[in-house]
Amino acid sequence: MQAIRLATTGQMMPLVGLGLWQMPNNVAKDMVVEAFKSGYRLLDSAGDYGNEKETGEGIQSAIDLGIVKREDIFVTSKLWNTCHARQHVRPAVERTLSDLGLTYLDLYLIHFPVSLKYVPFEERYPAGWFYDPKQQEIIQEPVPMRETWQAMEELVDAGLVKSIGVSNIPKRLINEILTYARIRPEVLQIEHHPYLTQEDLVTYAKGENMAITGYSTFGGNSYVELSERARNSPNLLTNDLITELAGKYKKSAGQILLKWSVQRGIAVVPKTSKGERLKENINIFDFELSEDDIRRISSLNRNLRFNEIENVTVYA
Amino acid sequence: MQAIRLATTGQMMPLVGLGLWQMPNNVAKDMVVEAFKSGYRLLDSAGDYGNEKETGEGIQSAIDLGIVKREDIFVTSKLWNTCHARQHVRPAVERTLSDLGLTYLDLYLIHFPVSLKYVPFEERYPAGWFYDPKQQEIIQEPVPMRETWQAMEELVDAGLVKSIGVSNIPKRLINEILTYARIRPEVLQIEHHPYLTQEDLVTYAKGENMAITGYSTFGGNSYVELSERARNSPNLLTNDLITELAGKYKKSAGQILLKWSVQRGIAVVPKTSKGERLKENINIFDFELSEDDIRRISSLNRNLRFNEIENVTVYA
Repeated sequence: MQAIRLATTGQMMPLVGLGLWQMPNNVAKDMVVEAFKSGYRLLDSAGDYGNEKETGEGIQSAIDLGIVKREDIFVTSKLWNTCHARQHVRPAVERTLSDLGLTYLDLYLIHFPVSLKYVPFEERYPAGWFYDPKQQEIIQEPVPMRETWQAMEELVDAGLVKSIGVSNIPKRLINEILTYARIRPEVLQIEHHPYLTQEDLVTYAKGENMAITGYSTFGGNSYVELSERARNSPNLLTNDLITELAGKYKKSAGQILLKWSVQRGIAVVPKTSKGERLKENINIFDFELSEDDIRRISSLNRNLRFNEIENVTVYA
Repeated sequence: MQAIRLATTGQMMPLVGLGLWQMPNNVAKDMVVEAFKSGYRLLDSAGDYGNEKETGEGIQSAIDLGIVKREDIFVTSKLWNTCHARQHVRPAVERTLSDLGLTYLDLYLIHFPVSLKYVPFEERYPAGWFYDPKQQEIIQEPVPMRETWQAMEELVDAGLVKSIGVSNIPKRLINEILTYARIRPEVLQIEHHPYLTQEDLVTYAKGENMAITGYSTFGGNSYVELSERARNSPNLLTNDLITELAGKYKKSAGQILLKWSVQRGIAVVPKTSKGERLKENINIFDFELSEDDIRRISSLNRNLRFNEIENVTVYA
């Protein structure tokens, strides 16, 4: 598995991983085991995804079966928005570690640069965006990013996570973190597909020696039930250029999209709950897109973001 | 003069002021005196503009002539990018106060959310963007915005400035400042004209009770010598809709643009070195654009920013 070397720690972060967002709880364990069998070595998890226990069962099962050892795999999780205050950061990662059955994470990201009012774990876990789900009310609670970042650094000090990073964050705010970071953000995770190529942010993050993971590589498909924008937007997997290139390279449209990202140096974490698709998504290292075809795909960009949260300032 | 009441201090910030950017040194003093004679009560200055001494001579002259009293006028200045470190903030405002011949400013803004390597005043003042002008080299030097903001707050404590604010800053970073601000930013100053209406940022700042000042209300005209983009962009003052409305309301194109901003609740600081234009720019309170015409002007938006600094991350 090809990988990106993280700038400070030298950890190798695989270029393709299994994304756990929207992975149904009843298949998560089996898919994790299958993924490891198929050659995956990275899991992209998050407290918010609500399936870290099942994910952890899959990890334990794969280890018990001798498919992988803990040190062979790279497990990412993410700090949810309700836990940005210093006193909530460590309990959040401890809950994630307990659910995953792990003693450390390879990477822990701040999921969004948005701080929400705390919801006790015993009241509801994961907390989601709404303080009161019945009222669908989002309550922001200001916590300086610096406080959250310092609490993240203390997780590294404590040996609970090897690296820390950020997600869904504009470059001005990354730049602000870099001014006070004792431990630099090693990874930036962002929405990234041919309709949202984020050239400016990608160039900036690479210039700062951050590794980048792109999510939603297939575009808006995962958002169709969540967002009108996704329902009204063209499907990347049936885009004329993508299907043309699928024919040319004798690969699926999905493989073209994943390879486009990977050749741009941006890791991918596609989710699937189908065994066949699992193998397909990782089988992208036996061909190369031409530079010209990469450019043609990138030129589909239309700054179309699917992971938008209504009424919350996230990306600017 | 209509004014915006600043949320915390209750200061009244006039809706129209005289902008000093690019005001030639040899006319600055006279223009300031003329402005006060014409009814202006706000000066929009900055250390970077290189004409604060002449501006100060104009203020002193107008006071000596009995045209205005210090307490009748609202003077804004701005902290330059080379002075973001805590130990440089107070000397920067003291230099500005000394040049302007004032004991306090009504408003002091962080000019850009960009910290550059310090240049001693005795070496070069104003320092400009380039550390070495011969090499045209921009050297960024990381200073946390929090440090700069706290130093700004200490200027309020010391009675050197009445209010503090920010300029050219994305909303995510405003939001970050709001999490740690002991004294809130009262004013946001941004590029604002019908080709760059900044709806999102404007809505956000108003929601946070910040007053907004828009600069470059006439569009790219001031940037023609600085930027290829401005040379290649259409001239707002001769835009079909703007000239149509000028005819309809029997006002100049410039007055239509200023009024559009003011009716959106956004103060303006047009610069002119012509006496006639000075009167014209403030003579915009005897007519009202219809809501529909305001919408039509706003729909000219094309996210066209003229005040771009090459290779420097400012706005995202």
